Amino acid sequence: MDSITLEPIGKILSCYGQKLGIPRQPGLAPAARALIELDYHEFPHLKDSVRGLEGFTHIWIIFAFHKNYSKNPSGLVRPPRLGGDKKVGAFASRSPYRPNPLGLSVVRLLELRYFEKHIELLVQGGDFLDCTPVLDIKPYLPYSDRLDNANTAWVEAVEDQLMGVRFNESALNVIRSTAEDKTEMVCECIRETLSLDPRPAFAKLKDTNSQQNRKWASLIFGFDVTWTVLSNECLVTSVELKERGILEKLSSS
Amino acid sequence: MDSITLEPIGKILSCYGQKLGIPRQPGLAPAARALIELDYHEFPHLKDSVRGLEGFTHIWIIFAFHKNYSKNPSGLVRPPRLGGDKKVGAFASRSPYRPNPLGLSVVRLLELRYFEKHIELLVQGGDFLDCTPVLDIKPYLPYSDRLDNANTAWVEAVEDQLMGVRFNESALNVIRSTAEDKTEMVCECIRETLSLDPRPAFAKLKDTNSQQNRKWASLIFGFDVTWTVLSNECLVTSVELKERGILEKLSSS
Repeated sequence: MDSITLEPIGKILSCYGQKLGIPRQPGLAPAARALIELDYHEFPHLKDSVRGLEGFTHIWIIFAFHKNYSKNPSGLVRPPRLGGDKKVGAFASRSPYRPNPLGLSVVRLLELRYFEKHIELLVQGGDFLDCTPVLDIKPYLPYSDRLDNANTAWVEAVEDQLMGVRFNESALNVIRSTAEDKTEMVCECIRETLSLDPRPAFAKLKDTNSQQNRKWASLIFGFDVTWTVLSNECLVTSVELKERGILEKLSSS
Repeated sequence: MDSITLEPIGKILSCYGQKLGIPRQPGLAPAARALIELDYHEFPHLKDSVRGLEGFTHIWIIFAFHKNYSKNPSGLVRPPRLGGDKKVGAFASRSPYRPNPLGLSVVRLLELRYFEKHIELLVQGGDFLDCTPVLDIKPYLPYSDRLDNANTAWVEAVEDQLMGVRFNESALNVIRSTAEDKTEMVCECIRETLSLDPRPAFAKLKDTNSQQNRKWASLIFGFDVTWTVLSNECLVTSVELKERGILEKLSSS
């Protein structure tokens, strides 16, 4: 069959600046934010193409996994939800390692912003890596997308154990002094993100003691967030501002 | 941004052999059937890649709109649900006329069939045109895909008025003598498909009298189905077998 070539319609500015920390699915960290930037240069009839979109609370984003996700050579993946030691087929998972690197996420649409040369869609609950190329936007249609009778095998069987999250005082002060009135938004997103325990599965499998002092880092809302896991609780040990401007762009007007 | 090239992983054998009649969304004609044929030639690790898929009742199909859907020049579409006279943006609709010709449908997975050189997924409730190229398969995950709080503007406001469907006796006899024990499956699918009134919007807008004797035709399960609309009811006037073999392939074992 002929190959199919697609042109990205825009890209995503995401509160997640690197892979570690990104929730496995959209909606798991509702405070996460992203800005979908659609460019007239990529698609001249942009303004018309989003007409009526503000009438939907939720939208699907079809995007490309763009960062080091080469074609999966074996067809098998190890879903973190299964503890990282069991394998399932790529098509039986939402893993980014798949034959065609297509991602599918539903997000809440907060705002549509019109500019002279581009349009911005502010969305909530995304699981995107910063700079993700966007291929399509579709409205979420409850009458066809909300299935009340859908069942899953292993996915539902595993309960998410949310971890407690604590900030040390100096880390909190860095956020307060920089984020000001957006402190709650940033802390909420960090709290939700870390409560999902984003450490790689191998780290969780290992002896707890050997991981006791291990530090992990995620880039969230432009902050380099360093944390460690202590007796099944995440402690944010330090926060450093790496990129200015992201916070402003990802705030509601 | 760089363009993205994707290789189809397979193609769809659908009960819908031509555009007229295809429901606007999956699930509207639950009796509709399709066979997703994945070929080892396209993707060598196929058998591994579907491992665990049988544990899901429903799956997402991301596919390409392949038939005469050139890039939409204006960015606007006229959704049949709005009567065909109002325009909305392509991104605010699920229309096939969109910047990147990507389709997204959730279907019920009935069977996984393994062969030496290919794998078949028999699915129910699809809205695919025959020969549609498939780009990705993902499990439907209720915990992230089933949104109870999603609202839509115009889409929900329009109620589907289902039409009555009657078969004339000779049409029914053609189906009975060919489909034999699959007669109910075929009739059910024709009934569900026509009850959605698949006529183009312009035909519905026109004076009813001028449309009184107009005949319409759809290719369903290999049958050329001709029908007319009489006082708000669909009457199947004739049925002719066009393609053998489709029915057999789309039946459950």
